[in-house]
Amino acid sequence: MSTFGTLFKVTTYGESHCKSVGCIVDGCPPGLELTEADIQPQLTRRRPGQSKLSTPRNESDLVEIQSGTENGVTLGSPIGMLVKNKDHRPGDYSETDLYPRPSHADWTYIQKYGSKSSSGGGRSSARETIGRVAAGAIAEKVLFKVNKIEIVAFVSSIGKIKMNTDPDNKEFIELLNNISRDDVDSYGPIRCPDEIKREEMVKLIEHYRDSKDSIGGVVTCVIRNCPPGLGEPCFDKLEAKLAHAMLSLPATKGFEFGSGFKGTELPGSKHNDAFIFDENLNRLKTKSNNSGGIQGGISNGENIYFSVAFKSAATISQEQETYTYDGKPGVLAARGRHDPSVTPRAVPIVESMAALVIMDAYLQQQARNSTRLLINN
Amino acid sequence: MSTFGTLFKVTTYGESHCKSVGCIVDGCPPGLELTEADIQPQLTRRRPGQSKLSTPRNESDLVEIQSGTENGVTLGSPIGMLVKNKDHRPGDYSETDLYPRPSHADWTYIQKYGSKSSSGGGRSSARETIGRVAAGAIAEKVLFKVNKIEIVAFVSSIGKIKMNTDPDNKEFIELLNNISRDDVDSYGPIRCPDEIKREEMVKLIEHYRDSKDSIGGVVTCVIRNCPPGLGEPCFDKLEAKLAHAMLSLPATKGFEFGSGFKGTELPGSKHNDAFIFDENLNRLKTKSNNSGGIQGGISNGENIYFSVAFKSAATISQEQETYTYDGKPGVLAARGRHDPSVTPRAVPIVESMAALVIMDAYLQQQARNSTRLLINN
Amino acid sequence: MSTFGTLFKVTTYGESHCKSVGCIVDGCPPGLELTEADIQPQLTRRRPGQSKLSTPRNESDLVEIQSGTENGVTLGSPIGMLVKNKDHRPGDYSETDLYPRPSHADWTYIQKYGSKSSSGGGRSSARETIGRVAAGAIAEKVLFKVNKIEIVAFVSSIGKIKMNTDPDNKEFIELLNNISRDDVDSYGPIRCPDEIKREEMVKLIEHYRDSKDSIGGVVTCVIRNCPPGLGEPCFDKLEAKLAHAMLSLPATKGFEFGSGFKGTELPGSKHNDAFIFDENLNRLKTKSNNSGGIQGGISNGENIYFSVAFKSAATISQEQETYTYDGKPGVLAARGRHDPSVTPRAVPIVESMAALVIMDAYLQQQARNSTRLLINN
Amino acid sequence: MSTFGTLFKVTTYGESHCKSVGCIVDGCPPGLELTEADIQPQLTRRRPGQSKLSTPRNESDLVEIQSGTENGVTLGSPIGMLVKNKDHRPGDYSETDLYPRPSHADWTYIQKYGSKSSSGGGRSSARETIGRVAAGAIAEKVLFKVNKIEIVAFVSSIGKIKMNTDPDNKEFIELLNNISRDDVDSYGPIRCPDEIKREEMVKLIEHYRDSKDSIGGVVTCVIRNCPPGLGEPCFDKLEAKLAHAMLSLPATKGFEFGSGFKGTELPGSKHNDAFIFDENLNRLKTKSNNSGGIQGGISNGENIYFSVAFKSAATISQEQETYTYDGKPGVLAARGRHDPSVTPRAVPIVESMAALVIMDAYLQQQARNSTRLLINN
Repeated sequence: MSTFGTLFKVTTYGESHCKSVGCIVDGCPPGLELTEADIQPQLTRRRPGQSKLSTPRNESDLVEIQSGTENGVTLGSPIGMLVKNKDHRPGDYSETDLYPRPSHADWTYIQKYGSKSSSGGGRSSARETIGRVAAGAIAEKVLFKVNKIEIVAFVSSIGKIKMNTDPDNKEFIELLNNISRDDVDSYGPIRCPDEIKREEMVKLIEHYRDSKDSIGGVVTCVIRNCPPGLGEPCFDKLEAKLAHAMLSLPATKGFEFGSGFKGTELPGSKHNDAFIFDENLNRLKTKSNNSGGIQGGISNGENIYFSVAFKSAATISQEQETYTYDGKPGVLAARGRHDPSVTPRAVPIVESMAALVIMDAYLQQQARNSTRLLINN
Repeated sequence: MSTFGTLFKVTTYGESHCKSVGCIVDGCPPGLELTEADIQPQLTRRRPGQSKLSTPRNESDLVEIQSGTENGVTLGSPIGMLVKNKDHRPGDYSETDLYPRPSHADWTYIQKYGSKSSSGGGRSSARETIGRVAAGAIAEKVLFKVNKIEIVAFVSSIGKIKMNTDPDNKEFIELLNNISRDDVDSYGPIRCPDEIKREEMVKLIEHYRDSKDSIGGVVTCVIRNCPPGLGEPCFDKLEAKLAHAMLSLPATKGFEFGSGFKGTELPGSKHNDAFIFDENLNRLKTKSNNSGGIQGGISNGENIYFSVAFKSAATISQEQETYTYDGKPGVLAARGRHDPSVTPRAVPIVESMAALVIMDAYLQQQARNSTRLLINN
Repeated sequence: MSTFGTLFKVTTYGESHCKSVGCIVDGCPPGLELTEADIQPQLTRRRPGQSKLSTPRNESDLVEIQSGTENGVTLGSPIGMLVKNKDHRPGDYSETDLYPRPSHADWTYIQKYGSKSSSGGGRSSARETIGRVAAGAIAEKVLFKVNKIEIVAFVSSIGKIKMNTDPDNKEFIELLNNISRDDVDSYGPIRCPDEIKREEMVKLIEHYRDSKDSIGGVVTCVIRNCPPGLGEPCFDKLEAKLAHAMLSLPATKGFEFGSGFKGTELPGSKHNDAFIFDENLNRLKTKSNNSGGIQGGISNGENIYFSVAFKSAATISQEQETYTYDGKPGVLAARGRHDPSVTPRAVPIVESMAALVIMDAYLQQQARNSTRLLINN
Repeated sequence: MSTFGTLFKVTTYGESHCKSVGCIVDGCPPGLELTEADIQPQLTRRRPGQSKLSTPRNESDLVEIQSGTENGVTLGSPIGMLVKNKDHRPGDYSETDLYPRPSHADWTYIQKYGSKSSSGGGRSSARETIGRVAAGAIAEKVLFKVNKIEIVAFVSSIGKIKMNTDPDNKEFIELLNNISRDDVDSYGPIRCPDEIKREEMVKLIEHYRDSKDSIGGVVTCVIRNCPPGLGEPCFDKLEAKLAHAMLSLPATKGFEFGSGFKGTELPGSKHNDAFIFDENLNRLKTKSNNSGGIQGGISNGENIYFSVAFKSAATISQEQETYTYDGKPGVLAARGRHDPSVTPRAVPIVESMAALVIMDAYLQQQARNSTRLLINN
């Protein structure tokens, strides 16, 4: 449903065209300096209308903290946050009263709930992700404070134009060590670190935009400085929670971490990440990182990295032959404001969900570990 | 942790070399005929030692129902089940006292828990999945009773040898409509429906077995007759729960459903599944199925299908240059009993986790829908 | 933490002096007619400043639905609601900067969170209950729609002045059958159905108000028309969830249902509720109702009734000898606005929490029962 | 349902006459020395047949740890435990095939599940509590290790014979400081610390036993050395979780803590617990303890104490006029083995549930607090 997490819990509300969208963050540790200024940047990165590559729907998306802080410091009580919905134009969606949009959620919402919101995508709209991003921004701040944990996502493919994200590609592995959010934003609205590919990507998106079509892509994300020991076997392995978090995002089709699907092609003798000893850390680390920073469901201290597949946006302006709700053939051409590619805007959303997963796992491990040390005192 | 599900809850216990492994299934509807005979077949399909392709570790894995049934019918109370661990040979694992096995969970378990089980993989062992399979068998029986829901998984790739699982491959889509569990078992221990590929696969596994190595693969799974309306947006979308369930399995690296990662390459105009009207069902259905049976996080009544990547088994018998726990370089050659490919044995495990997800989503939708109908009476 | 319920989930936020207080109700069945007009009455019954018996703090407490409905009908998506905090007067609480108020939460909040909100009771304030009441109003509407379930609470004691609430008192049992919320409100601000006792109660509260003191009391609540079968053994028995819900309210000291503590004095031969056959219902019912409508943790179709003890409000205006935070003796006299008795205002809050418990149990039983019937079809 | 707890989770299974009863304890910190010898004593204190005051049903109730420990130390993985059911005599219950036992769960189980176990009380039987006690014993061991937390329960009333448990009774408050489990057991099977009252209690129970009847009572419990800061407002206040835990026990009718129901009679000026400074602790503590160790839902470091009402056992051997399942009047006289008073045997069960609540709250506070300290480093 609409709550995610065990100790760091996020509950969201809101659809496209209601009064506001928002969330309640429960379990944020007290004593954290926190104001809207910590949260707004990711919301701004998420919001539509940032460039001609994305939907012209323009919303300022200003977050207002309702509770849970005083004098700019968290109290430990739940943090209510909301963003008002300003730009209501339900009229744009009138044609969808007759037609369930293909590959959208219109028809399944009716099957599930017996009705759907008459305008826009309702709860399946990307607007629902605002609460996630606001919550993730808080988690990120805590994670950086406690262990300098950094989370950076970027676009690694659009359509068939793909960066080389193989774990044996040294440049890619090096990139994961260094890329910053500022770097990503410096690449323009496409948010792809590969200089050559990103020009091709921009052209491809423009092509689909101009042909009233859309195209999918992949977002890759790295989590740095995650301490070893996070993740809760057996059902809540770290990769399981990450997969859950990512596939709960609208328009996702797949998740892989470390070597991913290609990793299935490697024999164990090549896939295994041999241990080496690191003098600085004074502990073992791994030579390669096919494991993507997670072994046996538990973080091993290496970079955690994973990729998320986003399909082409279902809502397109070109005509589609399809059927009406009551079973009559016809042609639908959506008139609303549509993204030719949702993938670049998904970057901060992926980061936020990753932060929520790591934050929750971190608190759970703190509970265990601090108690374990007291037992053996 | 070790509990999965909201209304149909499974809690498992047990590691490789303790007295027994087992589970408690809570929330199974009462009035279901159920004996060990309903559960044993999937456990038998899961167990090692079935062929020369898998580990020679031979365990009968007989399940014993402890509670929750009377006269072969479920009472509605929790169903305790256990399988005794018979074949303890911890001596096999003695070398791992010195070396954390690369890409296994030895080192991360110590980081997390401060210790690990001295023998075998402990809780990260595939033996932990017995409880899941026992629970899944019960879920499957309920699902078939209430809506003839069928779940069938098979091997679709081993190493680089791959079936064509593209959604626009009509043979593949046809296969998903018809393949049965009996069919899968008739393909021999490799469990791959493609006659030509499976011979290559067998040879590839034999090759890696003989070179004391291992190889990964992909399991593809179809869920037929799932009614529209299952899945709980926004965080518990059906694909999110499936991804969570699958990535909680040992040795998994990725999950994709419907068109998956390749689907990101298609423009919306091609990826969208147009609606058509089905006279028999007297409702809309989709012409194509790139959506993989799920739209907006909710089942749409089409076949749900997805693939899960399994890496090559981490434990191999050939020598690996690595380090001891205390930071000394050395060479490890595991002596235990090891699978050259875990993928074929993963087939019933994938089915079981799928059944747990669908069962839980089904109960949640029943709660909503039956209450909704009463409201509007 | 701040979420309550499994299928009908309420998450609240807000403390005394932040921007707003509110909640998210997740899992409300779709198709329910719902506007602010359904919710406001209980909020108005809860709000302070209703009479000279309660705190003069005057707040309009107008609820605003943010999401989850369209055209006055629920969508099935989460319902965000908020009530703005209008009447901020943190200055009133300045003395509590030095002194933790005795038997209030000031000191324990600091122990738990390392800090507390500088003004007012923070999250332990009764203002936190607004979200519960708003959510409960929705649950009540559903419950009445589906089974004409009615929930009515009233004051049964103030200080030592007590109604006779023994299960063998026929007048009391009769009262439980008939009392309506309108009746309760017709008794004036004291909300006690006993004509003679309530005058004494009013005098007693006035006495404590005039002596800058406070006094406790008991709220008794009846749930009528609850169908048999609700409650989830073993840990979530219906009485366990009711007890949890009630003891989560501020200032509560105890909970009992049916015969309660006095019931421990009766031998089984007298306490047991013999069965009789009811021609109208065409089923068994019980002759007496010492069980309070719950047997073995499951509703039996009789009236469910229980009582909740509320202590005297901790914040009083008279001087109290106590210590400062840093361990110096001194005298504290709170200057804020304080209730001489919180008990009458607790009436709608108790009703709301009861509604949340029954609603959640109802949905869970619907899931089980509707599926059970399909199995045996 | 059958799982209790958030971080320290217990899941139980088993009814009266199945193969075994047991539980899975998930989330126990690793590194704890643990063998059956730590668990058996509380199970032995719980088991029937200990004296002529209780049922002659004799079961050895030997616990067997299945998993989660190695070499007598916990691994951090789930601890499976079971106790075999040895003494099956379903024949004793044959009469209950015709008659639902008054105030027992026979009829409500049928209403809920559509069936009931044919013999004995099924899941509503006290035998279900074995899993709770086994789990509680583990929690107790951890709690003592980490903070010398001690939990001791005792019988404070049987029928109308009652100890004086008023918070202003200095002897009682002193008793709470000192009473040990050994003390309680030294009082004989009645487990009441009051020398005079306990003789009367024994006689009263014997009286009801001889007249084939039963009688209720109250168990009072103290938790010592609980650190300040435990409990999770707003819905999971410490008293709310304790109330939930206690009312989930079979045959309970009420819960109160600190001053309890009588506390409602005291004005705030008397009920409030003034602060004093404790040189040894170097912190504030309270002069009186009407709060029962909990303020604002959070432990304050004082003794936590509460009382639980247990009704007279529903199953009695004397004849009762009642009705058959199918609505015919008749006379039921149960023939099984029945306790004239369940209250003394409830003592270790109450302790166990208290331990589960405190353990879970402790882990949650450790997560928050250890993270908070890192934030502000």
